[in-house]
Amino acid sequence: MTRIAFLLVAVVTAAGVVAFMAPASGHADGEAAPIFVTKIPPGYRDWRLISVAHEEGSLNDIRAILGNDVAIKAYREEKLPFPDGTIIARLAWSYDPSEENDKIFGRRQSFVAGPPKNGVQFMVKDSRKYASTGGWGFAQFDDGKPADEAVLKTCFPCHAPIKSHDLVFTHYAP
Amino acid sequence: MTRIAFLLVAVVTAAGVVAFMAPASGHADGEAAPIFVTKIPPGYRDWRLISVAHEEGSLNDIRAILGNDVAIKAYREEKLPFPDGTIIARLAWSYDPSEENDKIFGRRQSFVAGPPKNGVQFMVKDSRKYASTGGWGFAQFDDGKPADEAVLKTCFPCHAPIKSHDLVFTHYAP
Repeated sequence: MTRIAFLLVAVVTAAGVVAFMAPASGHADGEAAPIFVTKIPPGYRDWRLISVAHEEGSLNDIRAILGNDVAIKAYREEKLPFPDGTIIARLAWSYDPSEENDKIFGRRQSFVAGPPKNGVQFMVKDSRKYASTGGWGFAQFDDGKPADEAVLKTCFPCHAPIKSHDLVFTHYAP
Repeated sequence: MTRIAFLLVAVVTAAGVVAFMAPASGHADGEAAPIFVTKIPPGYRDWRLISVAHEEGSLNDIRAILGNDVAIKAYREEKLPFPDGTIIARLAWSYDPSEENDKIFGRRQSFVAGPPKNGVQFMVKDSRKYASTGGWGFAQFDDGKPADEAVLKTCFPCHAPIKSHDLVFTHYAP
């Protein structure tokens, strides 16, 4: 097994975010190894909404799942598997009770998005590039920096059971 | 007090939604009366995300707040009051535990958006047209149909206390 050298290139994206393009460790003998997405897709905060969710437990966040144009089109046409070029973004924020709102409602009722939490995650579909992980490249950025490979290695095993929905947990909210 | 006749016009919007333009009851003697928004702003499902929230109690929904371009610009520039032309949309869905997700996580953790719930609501800023309600026109559509005036009359009194944020509950989620 021969490791191919890492190529690290600092790139300033359209959003002014410094991202790092790092073609992940390849294997010259053709052995499949996970490749991770290490560049923040530019403009993702402007993408359209797929759905929302709340995760309890250690995550304890409220989240929005956004999609690029390819993703939104595929969702609306209920086209599976998602075509190459699909990118799905998962944003999350602290799950905070809103005292401001509750005071007006007269009861504890309202839970809103606080500061960003649990990083920003992406799934990028490229059936050839990411063949070893179901056609999906996974990414997580914490404060704009790519998460460690150890973290990213946990993505695919968790998503793999959702085979019936092409490894994507989120369904479209009409 | 002279009521001006209602003019009901069926309009097929760009999104193919049949909306009804109904200039609400006016008052020829100039007396201020709430005027409500009775036409669904076309294309709102494609607008960008402002934030997300969960409301407990009788609402029991998970929701996304979207904004048109004027709204998003004002939010990002932290410009208050919101300029005329701002439209804010509140979509909501049933707050449903996800058995599909929980099975994979191995615990009850995941709450997702089910079917649409509690209608779709809008706030439209036009400081002259809606002067009697803080410059905001309020709207709610249930299954595409405008809610009764009795329902819409409850909007302004509830929003009025948020004077410090120009009557808008939702803050921007970065």
